[in-house]
Amino acid sequence: MEAYFDNSATTRCYPQVAQIVVKTMTEDFGNPSAMHQKGVEAEKYIRDTKEILARILKVKEKEIFFTSGGTESNNLALFGAAQANARSGKHVITTAVEHAAVGQPMERLAQMGYEVTVLPVDRTGVVDMKALEEALRPDTILVSTMYVNNEVGAVMPVEKIGALVHEKSPKALYHVDAIQAFGKYTIHPKKTGIDLLSVSSHKLHGPKGVGFLYINEKAKIQPQILGGGQQDGMRSGTDNVPGIAGLGVAAQMVYDHLEENREHLYQLKEYLAEGLLKLDDVCLNGMGLREGAPQILSASFLGIRSEVLLHTLEDRGIYVSAGSACSSHKRKAAGTLAAMGMPVSQKESTLRFSFSEENTFEEIDYCLEVLREVVPVLRRYSRH
Amino acid sequence: MEAYFDNSATTRCYPQVAQIVVKTMTEDFGNPSAMHQKGVEAEKYIRDTKEILARILKVKEKEIFFTSGGTESNNLALFGAAQANARSGKHVITTAVEHAAVGQPMERLAQMGYEVTVLPVDRTGVVDMKALEEALRPDTILVSTMYVNNEVGAVMPVEKIGALVHEKSPKALYHVDAIQAFGKYTIHPKKTGIDLLSVSSHKLHGPKGVGFLYINEKAKIQPQILGGGQQDGMRSGTDNVPGIAGLGVAAQMVYDHLEENREHLYQLKEYLAEGLLKLDDVCLNGMGLREGAPQILSASFLGIRSEVLLHTLEDRGIYVSAGSACSSHKRKAAGTLAAMGMPVSQKESTLRFSFSEENTFEEIDYCLEVLREVVPVLRRYSRH
Repeated sequence: MEAYFDNSATTRCYPQVAQIVVKTMTEDFGNPSAMHQKGVEAEKYIRDTKEILARILKVKEKEIFFTSGGTESNNLALFGAAQANARSGKHVITTAVEHAAVGQPMERLAQMGYEVTVLPVDRTGVVDMKALEEALRPDTILVSTMYVNNEVGAVMPVEKIGALVHEKSPKALYHVDAIQAFGKYTIHPKKTGIDLLSVSSHKLHGPKGVGFLYINEKAKIQPQILGGGQQDGMRSGTDNVPGIAGLGVAAQMVYDHLEENREHLYQLKEYLAEGLLKLDDVCLNGMGLREGAPQILSASFLGIRSEVLLHTLEDRGIYVSAGSACSSHKRKAAGTLAAMGMPVSQKESTLRFSFSEENTFEEIDYCLEVLREVVPVLRRYSRH
Repeated sequence: MEAYFDNSATTRCYPQVAQIVVKTMTEDFGNPSAMHQKGVEAEKYIRDTKEILARILKVKEKEIFFTSGGTESNNLALFGAAQANARSGKHVITTAVEHAAVGQPMERLAQMGYEVTVLPVDRTGVVDMKALEEALRPDTILVSTMYVNNEVGAVMPVEKIGALVHEKSPKALYHVDAIQAFGKYTIHPKKTGIDLLSVSSHKLHGPKGVGFLYINEKAKIQPQILGGGQQDGMRSGTDNVPGIAGLGVAAQMVYDHLEENREHLYQLKEYLAEGLLKLDDVCLNGMGLREGAPQILSASFLGIRSEVLLHTLEDRGIYVSAGSACSSHKRKAAGTLAAMGMPVSQKESTLRFSFSEENTFEEIDYCLEVLREVVPVLRRYSRH
């Protein structure tokens, strides 16, 4: 049996996604910038995806800008906002649990002379709202927080953050890395005070190499990749028609079944959690099961190094992640767990199980069966 | 009958490319950064493509960095080189006929305080070597020229340029935008003195949304998109496995048949040129037929506006381009033609025919037949 529980790293593409990707690679393969019919045909796919995304987010189509993925979306949002608004101030705010695709650009902004405030989180991984309130200043130009944390599934109170940011720092843009949230939550940026929203396609059964950034039409953002002026000059380069078309199909499918998928994910998570808690010395990390994100369960198997358990599970066809698999520094200690104040021993014995709606209870039964067998054995070998 | 002569804008993907894209989207769909087998499987596709590209270019695998396409490759090369080497000087050199994906970053570099010298070209679109020689200084840190011009197919003497650059400006990196050249020419950057080489996949029957930048291992380049540290930290973001795998297949196929494809392209070009010259008042632009790039023929139909002829041909299923279709400013006058000193009237009546090896002589016969019919009619209507 095989059980792929690493869906927060990446997902399998839907067959319908593969279908439209092939169609746009081999039949409607034109360059959307071309003046002739082949270009018009190709452009239609882009318009369709924009329409789908705009409808889901309740924003305007012209506020959707396609990128090569979540990382580029975050980089465009952060560098673009900081550079375009530097005259209003050079203070930016983020949290201690961001993905490296936010954390690293923030470090560079600091090198470039911006003042970066990094907010702490509580023991469940949620940003400290009091710290945010104290950090917000009149010269704050940008606040960036995730929606759902990729390591423990903590859900940030984005609506409260949005309200506070705009109340206390009228010049600030609020950027949300929604890479683990889009496809799991109903997100309406305008209602929530979100000015910039980063999304990746391959986390929701869409193609890799594509994503988008929602940019509030009132926000000033400096483009980062320059050239032929595609996408109103915000992001040049021949549009990735197959990727964009595939993203549209995936987003539509995911949002057509949002509630039922979410309920299924929560049930899978609860079922696994219940089983894990019957094992000795297992801690569940992060928020309460129904408060945290539906697709992520972080658990520490005290006394066993996560890589050892990960590879043992892998041998049985069960695929999980240790910390965040989005980082290529495969052995780097997970930043979120440290920021939550977790002791090193617990941190180093933590696995992330992440589900998609395609996972089944049978897979969880199988996983639990394997864990019941291997955990005591590994503990015997690894206790010092 | 249909004749797609806009292959320099984009090409149809090979079926074998579509096949590997589907396989990596639906079966071997893992995240290459994952520590388990699904990650290892996905990573193998990336290694395979790197191996193919390194062999074709005779460079090291670790000198290949994947991007979202040619535009990003150019941006990474230019901003990355300028920022990493600013301490050695702030003088950069380019030509008047570059694609906007070089021209626009150069304009921003000028705004950022770099001194940008723009070299003129001759009447065939080839860079003025004397002007280059005079422009090169000890504080020149970067020279960027294309290999093949996208509008008229002019071929730059890259080997001579490389030698001159390194002789006169020892600190300078030589960047070549090879987006229209890769897949048509044997390119060995190390022999040619090229330090940075930009390539796009969708110009050679590979997927859109992917490309690469060759970076000489000795060159200092500042990464532009930051995050999880993928690709040795040079370009973060989950690797676009399907795109990269597809690029590898396309590159291998194209280089397996390089000579025969090139000969076929030249014959198509000559056959069309011969037919065009039998029409009244048609000028062929750029270098001699066999000196210029095999896939591009630029022709001016004096007295007819290019859009009018373009749409007339489109109605008959013949797809060509007016100027460069890589720009979304669909009506912007073509920069190369102006730089070549072409009169406005000729410029505005210019079409680009661009071939792939899949085109046939029958398609050219059909195109010539249509042109013989419509050109006199359009001239009657459009002469003022």
